[in-house]
Amino acid sequence: MSDVIAAEQRNDKRIVQIELGDRSYPIVIGRRLFDDASVWSSAGEGDCAAIVTNTTVGPLYAATLERAISNRFRRVIHIELRDGEEFKDAASLNHIFDRLLSERADRKTVLFALGGGVVGDMTGFAAACYMRGIPFVQVPTTLLAQVDSSVGGKTAINHPLGKNMIGAFYQPRLVVADLDTLSTLPAREFAAGLAEVIKYGPVLDPQFFNWIETNIDALIARDTDALGYAIQRCCELKAEVVAKDEHEANVRAVLNFGHTFGHAIETGAGYGVWMHGEAVGCGMAMAADLSARLGMISEAFAIRLRRLVERAGFPVVGPRLGADRYLELMRHDKKSEGGEIRFVLLDEDGHASIRPAPDTIVRQVIDANCQRS
Amino acid sequence: MSDVIAAEQRNDKRIVQIELGDRSYPIVIGRRLFDDASVWSSAGEGDCAAIVTNTTVGPLYAATLERAISNRFRRVIHIELRDGEEFKDAASLNHIFDRLLSERADRKTVLFALGGGVVGDMTGFAAACYMRGIPFVQVPTTLLAQVDSSVGGKTAINHPLGKNMIGAFYQPRLVVADLDTLSTLPAREFAAGLAEVIKYGPVLDPQFFNWIETNIDALIARDTDALGYAIQRCCELKAEVVAKDEHEANVRAVLNFGHTFGHAIETGAGYGVWMHGEAVGCGMAMAADLSARLGMISEAFAIRLRRLVERAGFPVVGPRLGADRYLELMRHDKKSEGGEIRFVLLDEDGHASIRPAPDTIVRQVIDANCQRS
Repeated sequence: MSDVIAAEQRNDKRIVQIELGDRSYPIVIGRRLFDDASVWSSAGEGDCAAIVTNTTVGPLYAATLERAISNRFRRVIHIELRDGEEFKDAASLNHIFDRLLSERADRKTVLFALGGGVVGDMTGFAAACYMRGIPFVQVPTTLLAQVDSSVGGKTAINHPLGKNMIGAFYQPRLVVADLDTLSTLPAREFAAGLAEVIKYGPVLDPQFFNWIETNIDALIARDTDALGYAIQRCCELKAEVVAKDEHEANVRAVLNFGHTFGHAIETGAGYGVWMHGEAVGCGMAMAADLSARLGMISEAFAIRLRRLVERAGFPVVGPRLGADRYLELMRHDKKSEGGEIRFVLLDEDGHASIRPAPDTIVRQVIDANCQRS
Repeated sequence: MSDVIAAEQRNDKRIVQIELGDRSYPIVIGRRLFDDASVWSSAGEGDCAAIVTNTTVGPLYAATLERAISNRFRRVIHIELRDGEEFKDAASLNHIFDRLLSERADRKTVLFALGGGVVGDMTGFAAACYMRGIPFVQVPTTLLAQVDSSVGGKTAINHPLGKNMIGAFYQPRLVVADLDTLSTLPAREFAAGLAEVIKYGPVLDPQFFNWIETNIDALIARDTDALGYAIQRCCELKAEVVAKDEHEANVRAVLNFGHTFGHAIETGAGYGVWMHGEAVGCGMAMAADLSARLGMISEAFAIRLRRLVERAGFPVVGPRLGADRYLELMRHDKKSEGGEIRFVLLDEDGHASIRPAPDTIVRQVIDANCQRS
């Protein structure tokens, strides 16, 4: 596998080419992509396509997508799933298989995942398994999915005993990130995506961190030029990380920056009280503070990151759970090993690594950054 | 991917090395392999292994397999599925996932598939999907599975609307084919495997065809030396075919020799009336006759093949269905395209290709080889 990523901007479109040998594919980012026939040329063509979406996104964009691809496929099947993480399960997956088989979809059928991360994960996994693998195209309609699901090939469904436990690494043939779909995105979901965008600067790219600082107001205002560049850069950075480490593990774990504290905040406050984006935003500020207290980065850099999180509209003070509870929750984190919490920490401005930290310092961080009990 | 296959015979063990880059693995064929620690060295080691088997094979060999691997894994989970093709479904697959998750099996857990093709297909697919892929080892205990499932990486479950519709291409880390397990195989299942062994000669290797002719009595008597060589040669031949065409399609289809007529016989007579091996055996004789009538092979070669099928104990006269019914059934075959039946035909002694044939000649073959209506 090569880690070469070619990016270019054609007219108003940005294209990030993910190089994975015979599994290479382009990510096309821009406006009005549904009306642009050239965008869909690498989606393939043939007898049958299936648009898999959910009851929220389907009414908004499924007909538009069908128009965009109808000259490439003789028939287009529509499969609508219920909206929500709680339906990312074996029953929904089977529904996709039932529909494909009852429509006699053959192994050249192309699946189109139209929606956010849940639709993308389920459709990708369905494509990985149907007749042992058929092509699929990602059409992410949330900022989080455009940044996060476009690169890496992770597909999965949840199991009652664990999230994303059943899945496959399976690459799409094409990703189309239409910026216009972000205009209909609820504030909560936009914020979740924005937290992930901000994350890429401090852990991977100081220049991009500077750029986000300069353009944070445009991003919040959903300016499509700013969003287009941010999505492009995040996809490039994630592709570099994934190329080093396609099947999981250490290098890739830096993308969990802010998530150790963030998950503790989410779980400790009770799901739904803190939004995921808010929790990750606050978690990044706390992880930066921990890095500074360990002498790994300058205090000035930690403060800059906290200001950026604040300007993005996220809280920077964690909920009042008590340090014991925070530590207990973080010990249950996926990354912990033998009960030792492993933090994603900044070890210089714009670079991260995974390591444990002394409980006493972690307690100082919680005391300094959370409401006092 | 390389198509190099290295075979060697060490002491009484035969080893076929399947070369697939970083997914390469050995097939070990021999007697008393459960007692041979060196055989299991490429199975890996670690905290957890799971033996997946069924209610028929488990009581015979699961404890023996556990002893063979117990020094490599700290704990060994046993998962027993119900025996039969009708249980090769999503419910059984979920049972495997439920057990693995409730036992907290992590992503380094190694699955061992102990049984025939059904257990191998389901366990392989479970390994492909659990936490997006964990290692697995095939321990096939039927002749059919030792010949057929050892090479090719096909895994799947059935769906109510079609066999093997949901699955993945996923390679094992090791295949251990212990010839002693064949001693407990029911006659019906042994015959099914033998038909597949015979198949490899006429379509791929004239020398192997000669060898089978010379050794057919030893094979029928389940002589382990003869079976060991036959399984080795079939694995080598299949590996060459699969290397040309890992993900299905044309080259690989020659392995369906005898199956077009065979499936028509099985379905037309009613499932269970003809055994699968019997139907494939008779189907090979019919396909050879068709090849001879089309002038593709000598009549002498077709007669030799029919004699071999007869000596192996299979019927060479098909059931009385009528030519119309045969043609109708064959038009529903997977390989048919646009209603045109595509036969695997011998185009010279020891070589095959896929092609249509005129209905009039096919009717002659049916009239000459089946009971008259």
